[in-house]
Amino acid sequence: MERLFDEELTKLKERLLRMAALVEDSIELAVEALKTQKEEPGCEVLQREGQINLLDIEIDEICLRLLALRQPMAGDLRFVTSAMKIGAELERMGDLAVNIVERAAELRTMPLLKPLIDIPRMAKMAQAMVHDSLKAFIDRDDALAESILKRDDDVDRLNDQIFRELLTYMIEDPASVKRAVGLLLVGRHLERIADHATNISEDVIFLVRGKTIKHYFDRTRAVGCEGF
Amino acid sequence: MERLFDEELTKLKERLLRMAALVEDSIELAVEALKTQKEEPGCEVLQREGQINLLDIEIDEICLRLLALRQPMAGDLRFVTSAMKIGAELERMGDLAVNIVERAAELRTMPLLKPLIDIPRMAKMAQAMVHDSLKAFIDRDDALAESILKRDDDVDRLNDQIFRELLTYMIEDPASVKRAVGLLLVGRHLERIADHATNISEDVIFLVRGKTIKHYFDRTRAVGCEGF
Repeated sequence: MERLFDEELTKLKERLLRMAALVEDSIELAVEALKTQKEEPGCEVLQREGQINLLDIEIDEICLRLLALRQPMAGDLRFVTSAMKIGAELERMGDLAVNIVERAAELRTMPLLKPLIDIPRMAKMAQAMVHDSLKAFIDRDDALAESILKRDDDVDRLNDQIFRELLTYMIEDPASVKRAVGLLLVGRHLERIADHATNISEDVIFLVRGKTIKHYFDRTRAVGCEGF
Repeated sequence: MERLFDEELTKLKERLLRMAALVEDSIELAVEALKTQKEEPGCEVLQREGQINLLDIEIDEICLRLLALRQPMAGDLRFVTSAMKIGAELERMGDLAVNIVERAAELRTMPLLKPLIDIPRMAKMAQAMVHDSLKAFIDRDDALAESILKRDDDVDRLNDQIFRELLTYMIEDPASVKRAVGLLLVGRHLERIADHATNISEDVIFLVRGKTIKHYFDRTRAVGCEGF
Protein backbone atom coordinates (compact mmCIF):
# COMPACT_ATOMS: atom_id res chain seq x y z
CA MET A 1 0.00 0.00 0.00
CA GLU A 2 2.73 2.37 1.08
CA ARG A 3 4.79 1.46 -1.99
CA LEU A 4 1.85 1.90 -4.32
CA PHE A 5 1.29 5.36 -2.82
CA ASP A 6 4.93 6.30 -3.37
CA GLU A 7 4.84 5.01 -6.93
CA GLU A 8 1.78 7.09 -7.70
CA LEU A 9 3.39 10.14 -6.09
CA THR A 10 6.46 9.68 -8.30
CA LYS A 11 4.25 9.34 -11.36
CA LEU A 12 2.39 12.50 -10.34
CA LYS A 13 5.59 14.53 -10.08
CA GLU A 14 6.84 13.19 -13.41
CA ARG A 15 3.58 14.12 -15.16
CA LEU A 16 3.60 17.63 -13.71
CA LEU A 17 7.17 18.20 -14.84
CA ARG A 18 6.36 16.91 -18.30
CA MET A 19 3.34 19.23 -18.44
CA ALA A 20 5.46 22.20 -17.37
CA ALA A 21 8.08 21.40 -20.04
CA LEU A 22 5.32 21.36 -22.67
CA VAL A 23 4.04 24.72 -21.42
CA GLU A 24 7.53 26.23 -21.54
CA ASP A 25 7.98 25.01 -25.11
CA SER A 26 4.56 26.34 -26.06
CA ILE A 27 5.34 29.83 -24.81
CA GLU A 28 8.52 29.92 -26.88
CA LEU A 29 6.85 28.50 -29.99
CA ALA A 30 3.87 30.86 -29.70
CA VAL A 31 6.12 33.90 -29.62
CA GLU A 32 8.12 32.44 -32.51
CA ALA A 33 4.87 32.16 -34.50
CA LEU A 34 4.25 35.82 -33.75
CA LYS A 35 7.77 36.95 -34.67
CA THR A 36 8.34 34.88 -37.78
CA GLN A 37 4.71 35.07 -38.99
CA LYS A 38 5.00 31.38 -39.85
CA GLU A 39 2.29 28.80 -39.39
CA GLU A 40 4.32 25.81 -38.19
CA PRO A 41 5.34 26.93 -34.71
CA GLY A 42 1.68 27.80 -34.00
CA CYS A 43 0.55 24.36 -35.09
CA GLU A 44 3.14 22.82 -32.79
CA VAL A 45 1.62 24.77 -29.92
CA LEU A 46 -1.78 23.26 -30.72
CA GLN A 47 -0.27 19.78 -30.73
CA ARG A 48 1.27 20.42 -27.35
CA GLU A 49 -1.99 21.79 -26.01
CA GLY A 50 -3.60 18.43 -26.79
CA GLN A 51 -0.89 16.67 -24.81
CA ILE A 52 -1.17 19.18 -21.95
CA ASN A 53 -4.91 18.59 -21.74
CA LEU A 54 -4.47 14.82 -21.59
CA LEU A 55 -1.90 15.23 -18.84
CA ASP A 56 -4.29 17.50 -16.92
CA ILE A 57 -6.94 14.77 -16.98
CA GLU A 58 -4.40 12.10 -16.02
CA ILE A 59 -3.09 14.19 -13.11
CA ASP A 60 -6.62 14.63 -11.80
CA GLU A 61 -7.13 10.88 -11.99
CA ILE A 62 -3.88 10.12 -10.17
CA CYS A 63 -4.78 12.62 -7.44
CA LEU A 64 -8.27 11.19 -6.97
CA ARG A 65 -6.72 7.70 -6.80
CA LEU A 66 -4.18 8.86 -4.23
CA LEU A 67 -6.91 10.42 -2.11
CA ALA A 68 -9.09 7.31 -2.37
CA LEU A 69 -6.25 4.83 -1.94
CA ARG A 70 -5.02 6.12 1.35
CA GLN A 71 -6.11 8.86 3.64
CA PRO A 72 -3.06 11.07 3.24
CA MET A 73 -2.57 13.37 6.20
CA ALA A 74 -1.12 16.86 6.65
CA GLY A 75 1.87 17.24 4.32
CA ASP A 76 0.95 14.43 1.92
CA LEU A 77 -2.64 15.62 1.69
CA ARG A 78 -1.52 19.14 0.90
CA PHE A 79 0.90 17.75 -1.67
CA VAL A 80 -1.90 15.95 -3.52
CA THR A 81 -4.35 18.84 -3.44
CA SER A 82 -1.57 21.24 -4.51
CA ALA A 83 -0.75 18.93 -7.42
CA MET A 84 -4.38 19.10 -8.59
CA LYS A 85 -4.28 22.89 -8.48
CA ILE A 86 -0.92 23.08 -10.22
CA GLY A 87 -2.20 20.82 -13.00
CA ALA A 88 -5.11 23.21 -13.51
CA GLU A 89 -2.77 26.24 -13.58
CA LEU A 90 -0.53 24.61 -16.20
CA GLU A 91 -3.54 23.72 -18.30
CA ARG A 92 -4.62 27.39 -18.33
CA MET A 93 -1.15 28.40 -19.40
CA GLY A 94 -1.42 25.98 -22.33
CA ASP A 95 -4.67 27.73 -23.30
CA LEU A 96 -3.00 31.11 -23.08
CA ALA A 97 -0.19 29.95 -25.38
CA VAL A 98 -2.92 28.96 -27.85
CA ASN A 99 -4.44 32.44 -27.42
CA ILE A 100 -1.10 33.94 -28.43
CA VAL A 101 -1.09 31.68 -31.50
CA GLU A 102 -4.62 32.90 -32.34
CA ARG A 103 -3.37 36.49 -32.18
CA ALA A 104 -0.35 35.50 -34.32
CA ALA A 105 -2.72 33.97 -36.91
CA GLU A 106 -4.76 37.20 -37.03
CA LEU A 107 -1.59 39.24 -37.49
CA ARG A 108 0.02 36.94 -40.07
CA THR A 109 -1.39 38.79 -43.09
CA MET A 110 -0.29 42.23 -41.91
CA PRO A 111 3.25 43.63 -41.87
CA LEU A 112 4.85 43.54 -38.43
CA LEU A 113 4.23 46.77 -36.53
CA LYS A 114 7.84 46.86 -35.33
CA PRO A 115 10.62 44.42 -34.53
CA LEU A 116 9.52 42.54 -31.45
CA ILE A 117 11.90 42.93 -28.53
CA ASP A 118 9.95 43.44 -25.32
CA ILE A 119 7.37 40.73 -25.96
CA PRO A 120 9.99 37.99 -26.45
CA ARG A 121 11.72 39.30 -23.33
CA MET A 122 8.49 39.07 -21.37
CA ALA A 123 7.96 35.55 -22.75
CA LYS A 124 11.41 34.51 -21.51
CA MET A 125 10.59 35.87 -18.05
CA ALA A 126 7.26 34.04 -17.93
CA GLN A 127 8.86 30.84 -19.16
CA ALA A 128 11.53 30.95 -16.45
CA MET A 129 8.82 31.59 -13.83
CA VAL A 130 6.95 28.46 -14.96
CA HIS A 131 10.14 26.41 -14.81
CA ASP A 132 11.15 27.66 -11.39
CA SER A 133 7.68 27.39 -9.86
CA LEU A 134 7.65 23.68 -10.72
CA LYS A 135 11.20 23.30 -9.40
CA ALA A 136 10.07 24.96 -6.17
CA PHE A 137 7.15 22.52 -5.96
CA ILE A 138 9.24 19.38 -6.52
CA ASP A 139 12.02 20.55 -4.15
CA ARG A 140 9.51 22.01 -1.65
CA ASP A 141 11.59 25.19 -1.85
CA ASP A 142 9.50 28.01 -0.40
CA ALA A 143 12.31 30.57 -0.72
CA LEU A 144 12.48 29.99 -4.47
CA ALA A 145 8.68 30.22 -4.62
CA GLU A 146 8.77 33.53 -2.79
CA SER A 147 11.34 34.95 -5.23
CA ILE A 148 8.93 34.18 -8.08
CA LEU A 149 6.27 36.44 -6.56
CA LYS A 150 8.67 39.36 -6.93
CA ARG A 151 9.48 38.48 -10.53
CA ASP A 152 5.79 38.73 -11.31
CA ASP A 153 5.99 42.43 -10.50
CA ASP A 154 8.75 42.82 -13.11
CA VAL A 155 6.54 41.14 -15.71
CA ASP A 156 3.66 43.46 -14.81
CA ARG A 157 5.88 46.49 -15.18
CA LEU A 158 7.17 45.37 -18.57
CA ASN A 159 3.61 44.72 -19.71
CA ASP A 160 2.56 48.23 -18.61
CA GLN A 161 5.45 49.66 -20.60
CA ILE A 162 4.51 47.66 -23.72
CA PHE A 163 0.90 48.75 -23.24
CA ARG A 164 1.76 52.45 -23.10
CA GLU A 165 4.05 52.22 -26.12
CA LEU A 166 1.33 50.50 -28.18
CA LEU A 167 -1.22 53.15 -27.16
CA THR A 168 1.14 55.77 -28.58
CA TYR A 169 1.38 53.88 -31.86
CA MET A 170 -2.40 53.69 -32.15
CA ILE A 171 -2.94 57.36 -31.37
CA GLU A 172 -0.31 58.46 -33.88
CA ASP A 173 -1.29 56.11 -36.69
CA PRO A 174 -4.81 54.73 -37.08
CA ALA A 175 -3.48 52.20 -39.61
CA SER A 176 -1.61 50.52 -36.76
CA VAL A 177 -4.66 49.95 -34.55
CA LYS A 178 -5.38 46.32 -35.39
CA ARG A 179 -1.78 45.24 -35.12
CA ALA A 180 -1.21 47.20 -31.92
CA VAL A 181 -4.33 45.73 -30.29
CA GLY A 182 -3.11 42.26 -31.26
CA LEU A 183 0.24 42.83 -29.58
CA LEU A 184 -1.40 44.44 -26.59
CA LEU A 185 -3.44 41.27 -26.10
CA VAL A 186 -0.34 39.10 -26.46
CA GLY A 187 1.20 41.15 -23.66
CA ARG A 188 -1.80 40.39 -21.49
CA HIS A 189 -1.70 36.68 -22.32
CA LEU A 190 1.94 36.57 -21.22
CA GLU A 191 1.20 38.55 -18.10
CA ARG A 192 -1.49 36.03 -17.22
CA ILE A 193 0.87 33.11 -17.78
CA ALA A 194 3.17 34.77 -15.24
CA ASP A 195 0.16 35.16 -12.90
CA HIS A 196 -0.51 31.44 -13.09
CA ALA A 197 3.15 30.74 -12.23
CA THR A 198 2.62 33.06 -9.28
CA ASN A 199 -0.42 31.05 -8.21
CA ILE A 200 1.70 27.89 -8.31
CA SER A 201 4.32 29.62 -6.16
CA GLU A 202 1.64 30.54 -3.63
CA ASP A 203 0.53 26.91 -3.58
CA VAL A 204 4.13 25.84 -2.93
CA ILE A 205 4.42 28.25 0.00
CA PHE A 206 1.17 26.85 1.40
CA LEU A 207 2.47 23.30 0.88
CA VAL A 208 5.73 23.96 2.71
CA ARG A 209 4.58 26.30 5.45
CA GLY A 210 1.09 24.92 5.97
CA LYS A 211 -0.46 28.36 5.85
CA THR A 212 -1.63 30.46 2.97
CA ILE A 213 -0.04 33.71 1.82
CA LYS A 214 -2.67 34.26 -0.86
CA HIS A 215 -4.52 37.54 -0.96
CA TYR A 216 -2.08 39.38 1.22
CA PHE A 217 -1.93 42.57 -0.79
CA ASP A 218 -4.18 45.56 -0.67
CA ARG A 219 -5.57 47.02 -3.86
CA THR A 220 -7.71 49.80 -2.43
CA ARG A 221 -5.16 52.42 -3.32
CA ALA A 222 -4.96 51.56 -7.02
CA VAL A 223 -8.58 52.52 -7.61
CA GLY A 224 -8.89 55.40 -5.18
CA CYS A 225 -10.80 53.91 -2.23
CA GLU A 226 -8.51 54.89 0.63
CA GLY A 227 -10.36 55.05 3.91
CA PHE A 228 -13.45 53.54 2.36
CA MET B 1 -18.17 10.99 12.34
CA GLU B 2 -20.80 10.67 9.64
CA ARG B 3 -22.74 13.61 11.10
CA LEU B 4 -19.64 15.73 11.36
CA PHE B 5 -18.95 14.99 7.70
CA ASP B 6 -22.46 16.01 6.69
CA GLU B 7 -22.26 19.19 8.74
CA GLU B 8 -19.02 20.15 7.05
CA LEU B 9 -20.51 19.36 3.63
CA THR B 10 -23.45 21.64 4.40
CA LYS B 11 -21.11 24.38 5.54
CA LEU B 12 -19.09 23.94 2.34
CA LYS B 13 -22.14 24.37 0.11
CA GLU B 14 -23.29 27.39 2.08
CA ARG B 15 -19.87 29.08 1.76
CA LEU B 16 -19.71 28.42 -1.99
CA LEU B 17 -23.18 29.91 -2.50
CA ARG B 18 -22.26 32.93 -0.42
CA MET B 19 -19.08 33.36 -2.48
CA ALA B 20 -21.04 33.11 -5.74
CA ALA B 21 -23.54 35.72 -4.53
CA LEU B 22 -20.67 38.09 -3.75
CA VAL B 23 -19.22 37.50 -7.21
CA GLU B 24 -22.58 38.20 -8.88
CA ASP B 25 -22.90 41.44 -6.92
CA SER B 26 -19.35 42.39 -7.81
CA ILE B 27 -19.95 42.00 -11.53
CA GLU B 28 -22.98 44.27 -11.34
CA LEU B 29 -21.25 46.86 -9.19
CA ALA B 30 -18.13 46.87 -11.37
CA VAL B 31 -20.17 47.61 -14.48
CA GLU B 32 -22.09 50.26 -12.54
CA ALA B 33 -18.76 51.89 -11.64
CA LEU B 34 -17.92 51.91 -15.34
CA LYS B 35 -21.29 53.30 -16.43
CA THR B 36 -21.82 55.93 -13.77
CA GLN B 37 -18.12 56.88 -13.49
CA LYS B 38 -18.63 56.95 -9.73
CA GLU B 39 -16.13 55.74 -7.18
CA GLU B 40 -18.44 54.08 -4.63
CA PRO B 41 -19.57 51.00 -6.55
CA GLY B 42 -15.92 50.23 -7.35
CA CYS B 43 -14.98 50.48 -3.69
CA GLU B 44 -17.80 48.11 -2.84
CA VAL B 45 -16.32 45.60 -5.28
CA LEU B 46 -12.99 45.82 -3.44
CA GLN B 47 -14.75 45.20 -0.14
CA ARG B 48 -16.43 42.14 -1.59
CA GLU B 49 -13.16 40.90 -3.03
CA GLY B 50 -11.74 40.81 0.49
CA GLN B 51 -14.70 38.71 1.64
CA ILE B 52 -14.40 36.45 -1.42
CA ASN B 53 -10.73 35.84 -0.69
CA LEU B 54 -11.44 34.92 2.93
CA LEU B 55 -14.14 32.51 1.79
CA ASP B 56 -11.72 30.96 -0.71
CA ILE B 57 -9.26 30.23 2.11
CA GLU B 58 -12.05 28.91 4.36
CA ILE B 59 -13.36 26.61 1.61
CA ASP B 60 -9.88 25.16 1.08
CA GLU B 61 -9.63 24.52 4.82
CA ILE B 62 -13.04 22.82 4.96
CA CYS B 63 -12.11 20.63 1.98
CA LEU B 64 -8.77 19.61 3.47
CA ARG B 65 -10.58 18.82 6.76
CA LEU B 66 -13.18 16.73 4.92
CA LEU B 67 -10.47 14.80 3.09
CA ALA B 68 -8.50 14.23 6.31
CA LEU B 69 -11.56 13.50 8.48
CA ARG B 70 -12.84 10.66 6.45
CA GLN B 71 -11.71 8.93 3.32
CA PRO B 72 -14.55 10.02 1.05
CA MET B 73 -15.04 7.66 -1.86
CA ALA B 74 -16.24 8.09 -5.45
CA GLY B 75 -19.05 10.66 -5.50
CA ASP B 76 -18.21 12.31 -2.17
CA LEU B 77 -14.55 12.52 -3.07
CA ARG B 78 -15.37 14.14 -6.38
CA PHE B 79 -17.73 16.54 -4.60
CA VAL B 80 -14.98 17.75 -2.27
CA THR B 81 -12.32 18.10 -4.97
CA SER B 82 -14.84 19.87 -7.24
CA ALA B 83 -15.67 22.26 -4.41
CA MET B 84 -11.98 23.18 -4.09
CA LYS B 85 -11.80 23.90 -7.80
CA ILE B 86 -15.04 25.88 -7.80
CA GLY B 87 -13.77 27.99 -4.91
CA ALA B 88 -10.67 28.81 -6.97
CA GLU B 89 -12.78 29.71 -10.03
CA LEU B 90 -14.98 32.05 -8.00
CA GLU B 91 -11.93 33.68 -6.50
CA ARG B 92 -10.58 34.43 -9.99
CA MET B 93 -13.91 35.96 -10.94
CA GLY B 94 -13.65 38.26 -7.93
CA ASP B 95 -10.23 39.34 -9.23
CA LEU B 96 -11.66 39.98 -12.68
CA ALA B 97 -14.41 42.17 -11.21
CA VAL B 98 -11.62 44.17 -9.56
CA ASN B 99 -9.87 44.37 -12.95
CA ILE B 100 -13.05 45.94 -14.37
CA VAL B 101 -13.03 48.44 -11.50
CA GLU B 102 -9.39 49.26 -12.30
CA ARG B 103 -10.39 49.96 -15.90
CA ALA B 104 -13.33 52.07 -14.64
CA ALA B 105 -10.93 54.06 -12.46
CA GLU B 106 -8.67 54.74 -15.45
CA LEU B 107 -11.65 55.87 -17.53
CA ARG B 108 -13.24 57.98 -14.81
CA THR B 109 -11.54 61.21 -15.86
CA MET B 110 -12.47 60.90 -19.54
CA PRO B 111 -15.89 61.42 -21.10
CA LEU B 112 -17.70 58.15 -21.86
CA LEU B 113 -16.96 56.96 -25.38
CA LYS B 114 -20.61 56.09 -25.93
CA PRO B 115 -23.61 54.99 -23.88
CA LEU B 116 -22.83 51.49 -22.68
CA ILE B 117 -25.33 48.89 -23.84
CA ASP B 118 -23.54 45.73 -24.93
CA ILE B 119 -21.13 45.60 -22.01
CA PRO B 120 -23.91 45.69 -19.38
CA ARG B 121 -25.73 43.04 -21.45
CA MET B 122 -22.64 40.86 -21.47
CA ALA B 123 -22.27 41.41 -17.71
CA LYS B 124 -25.87 40.22 -17.15
CA MET B 125 -25.16 37.10 -19.19
CA ALA B 126 -21.96 36.34 -17.25
CA GLN B 127 -23.73 36.98 -13.96
CA ALA B 128 -26.52 34.53 -14.82
CA MET B 129 -23.93 31.93 -15.86
CA VAL B 130 -22.23 32.21 -12.46
CA HIS B 131 -25.55 31.87 -10.69
CA ASP B 132 -26.67 28.87 -12.72
CA SER B 133 -23.33 27.07 -12.59
CA LEU B 134 -23.52 27.11 -8.78
CA LYS B 135 -27.15 26.00 -8.89
CA ALA B 136 -26.09 23.13 -11.16
CA PHE B 137 -23.38 22.19 -8.67
CA ILE B 138 -25.65 22.20 -5.60
CA ASP B 139 -28.47 20.35 -7.42
CA ARG B 140 -26.00 18.05 -9.26
CA ASP B 141 -27.84 19.07 -12.42
CA ASP B 142 -25.62 18.13 -15.37
CA ALA B 143 -28.24 19.18 -17.96
CA LEU B 144 -28.23 22.72 -16.56
CA ALA B 145 -24.42 22.64 -16.54
CA GLU B 146 -24.37 21.59 -20.17
CA SER B 147 -26.69 24.44 -21.17
CA ILE B 148 -24.19 26.88 -19.65
CA LEU B 149 -21.47 25.72 -22.03
CA LYS B 150 -23.63 26.87 -24.93
CA ARG B 151 -24.30 30.24 -23.33
CA ASP B 152 -20.55 30.78 -23.19
CA ASP B 153 -20.55 30.82 -26.99
CA ASP B 154 -23.10 33.66 -26.94
CA VAL B 155 -20.89 35.65 -24.62
CA ASP B 156 -17.89 35.06 -26.90
CA ARG B 157 -19.87 36.25 -29.91
CA LEU B 158 -21.04 39.39 -28.13
CA ASN B 159 -17.48 40.10 -27.07
CA ASP B 160 -16.25 39.72 -30.65
CA GLN B 161 -18.91 42.16 -31.77
CA ILE B 162 -17.92 44.69 -29.09
CA PHE B 163 -14.29 44.20 -30.04
CA ARG B 164 -14.89 44.92 -33.73
CA GLU B 165 -16.99 47.97 -32.97
CA LEU B 166 -14.30 49.40 -30.70
CA LEU B 167 -11.63 48.81 -33.33
CA THR B 168 -13.69 50.92 -35.72
CA TYR B 169 -13.89 53.73 -33.17
CA MET B 170 -10.12 53.69 -32.70
CA ILE B 171 -9.37 53.70 -36.41
CA GLU B 172 -11.77 56.58 -37.07
CA ASP B 173 -10.80 58.72 -34.12
CA PRO B 174 -7.36 58.53 -32.49
CA ALA B 175 -8.73 60.56 -29.57
CA SER B 176 -10.87 57.58 -28.67
CA VAL B 177 -8.01 55.07 -28.42
CA LYS B 178 -7.49 55.07 -24.66
CA ARG B 179 -11.19 54.82 -23.89
CA ALA B 180 -11.79 52.16 -26.52
CA VAL B 181 -8.89 50.04 -25.26
CA GLY B 182 -10.29 50.34 -21.74
CA LEU B 183 -13.69 49.07 -22.86
CA LEU B 184 -12.11 46.35 -24.99
CA LEU B 185 -10.33 45.06 -21.90
CA VAL B 186 -13.55 45.19 -19.88
CA GLY B 187 -15.10 43.00 -22.57
CA ARG B 188 -12.30 40.50 -22.14
CA HIS B 189 -12.61 40.53 -18.36
CA LEU B 190 -16.31 39.70 -18.68
CA GLU B 191 -15.61 37.01 -21.25
CA ARG B 192 -13.15 35.44 -18.85
CA ILE B 193 -15.69 35.53 -16.02
CA ALA B 194 -18.00 33.57 -18.33
CA ASP B 195 -15.11 31.16 -19.05
CA HIS B 196 -14.71 30.50 -15.33
CA ALA B 197 -18.45 29.78 -15.05
CA THR B 198 -17.93 27.36 -17.93
CA ASN B 199 -15.10 25.67 -16.04
CA ILE B 200 -17.43 25.25 -13.07
CA SER B 201 -20.04 23.71 -15.37
CA GLU B 202 -17.45 21.24 -16.66
CA ASP B 203 -16.60 20.34 -13.08
CA VAL B 204 -20.30 19.74 -12.39
CA ILE B 205 -20.60 17.42 -15.39
CA PHE B 206 -17.54 15.51 -14.15
CA LEU B 207 -19.06 15.35 -10.67
CA VAL B 208 -22.38 13.94 -11.88
CA ARG B 209 -21.19 11.70 -14.71
CA GLY B 210 -17.86 10.64 -13.27
CA LYS B 211 -16.05 11.39 -16.48
CA THR B 212 -14.58 14.57 -17.84
CA ILE B 213 -15.84 16.50 -20.85
CA LYS B 214 -13.04 19.03 -20.64
CA HIS B 215 -10.93 19.72 -23.70
CA TYR B 216 -13.36 18.16 -26.13
CA PHE B 217 -13.17 20.81 -28.81
CA ASP B 218 -10.72 21.15 -31.63
CA ARG B 219 -9.05 24.45 -32.28
CA THR B 220 -6.76 23.51 -35.16
CA ARG B 221 -9.06 25.14 -37.67
CA ALA B 222 -9.13 28.57 -36.04
CA VAL B 223 -5.43 29.10 -36.63
CA GLY B 224 -5.05 27.29 -39.94
CA CYS B 225 -3.41 23.99 -39.00
CA GLU B 226 -5.72 21.55 -40.73
CA GLY B 227 -4.01 18.29 -41.51
CA PHE B 228 -0.97 19.30 -39.54
